[in-house]
Amino acid sequence: MRQRSVKNQDDILNNSSKYVKEPNIKKGTWKSKQYKEMHIEIGIGKGTFITTLAHQNPDILYVGIELSKAVLALAIKKTRRFEEEKNIKLNNLLIFDKDATTLDEIFNKEEVDKIYLNFSDPWHKNKHAKRRLTSPEFLKVYKNILKEKGKIEFKTDNRKLFEYSLLTLNESKVLMEYISLDLHKEDIPNIMTEYEEKFSKFGPIYKLIFSFRE
Amino acid sequence: MRQRSVKNQDDILNNSSKYVKEPNIKKGTWKSKQYKEMHIEIGIGKGTFITTLAHQNPDILYVGIELSKAVLALAIKKTRRFEEEKNIKLNNLLIFDKDATTLDEIFNKEEVDKIYLNFSDPWHKNKHAKRRLTSPEFLKVYKNILKEKGKIEFKTDNRKLFEYSLLTLNESKVLMEYISLDLHKEDIPNIMTEYEEKFSKFGPIYKLIFSFRE
Repeated sequence: MRQRSVKNQDDILNNSSKYVKEPNIKKGTWKSKQYKEMHIEIGIGKGTFITTLAHQNPDILYVGIELSKAVLALAIKKTRRFEEEKNIKLNNLLIFDKDATTLDEIFNKEEVDKIYLNFSDPWHKNKHAKRRLTSPEFLKVYKNILKEKGKIEFKTDNRKLFEYSLLTLNESKVLMEYISLDLHKEDIPNIMTEYEEKFSKFGPIYKLIFSFRE
Repeated sequence: MRQRSVKNQDDILNNSSKYVKEPNIKKGTWKSKQYKEMHIEIGIGKGTFITTLAHQNPDILYVGIELSKAVLALAIKKTRRFEEEKNIKLNNLLIFDKDATTLDEIFNKEEVDKIYLNFSDPWHKNKHAKRRLTSPEFLKVYKNILKEKGKIEFKTDNRKLFEYSLLTLNESKVLMEYISLDLHKEDIPNIMTEYEEKFSKFGPIYKLIFSFRE
């Protein structure tokens, strides 16, 4: 999701206990004893997906990553509203703004238990293929920070991005664990993102769950 | 395609120079010198697809396989009509009725250059998964009769069969070369089967091209 800027966005971020200004400092020490796992979402948008998960699973630490400070500020406002409505505090949710290419400077090898990629930018021009979050370059980063057999869950409504991803995953010899070419027709639990709520009426949602073979 | 029986089906088959009654006898000697390659289609239905290809590529030997004698008889009648209309003779087209599980008794190791699987039976019950033409058991047979780096082209409109196939192909560590989740939206040549002509208006046609890695 692109957004130019949000009024007082720096204040919103800096005043939030969920915002991690310098995530690199936490490398290797993200998960305190109270959490059995750490799951991250790359590209959280307005954050409904990760906020819902954090609420459902208090024993898992959720870390949301978003390139745009403006979008992060919106996500923080939305999460605050969610907490107020439910009269809760989601201490197991942290967020930061960094480029996903630098994730191995932020997380230790095998420090992450699961990765979510939801409706990321398809970068439809071939010359920008490297920026797609399922490019071979990104897959290498994920493999590095994911624990052995840790899963990646990937959803998109973009057919071309999904086709591209099936090819790069095949190239990277991943283990495919689940595939749906029309997720909303399946009888399985699904937490929708804001984007998914809006756009799933126009066509199928594709989903993949995979891990790395070695 | 299922069909109970066709009037005079045995006569139609036995009177056709295209029908190979005992294909096992030709094992290892299918391709005479005039042909640069041999391509086979498993499940030819009424045969429009393979007949069109045979017409387009006289230097390739096409062999069509169909379980049902009745369907084969219809295909022969249709091919005969095609030849009459165009005033040609497709000497590079042969057909036989055998179960695909026995293909390695009919073709030598690496004797086949390409395999087509078009709109095969999805066998939607899990207990019949082994009968799907992209089950691990069938993939082993194909690997055996296909030449090194020989390609398999697979088309279906059945979402569940395509999802299943993506998983079995991943398990079998194939090399995926092409994938489309909506073939009719692509700007590439496509020969339609009879079934495809009829049913593509109801949903997307899925296509995969793959080969075996080693």
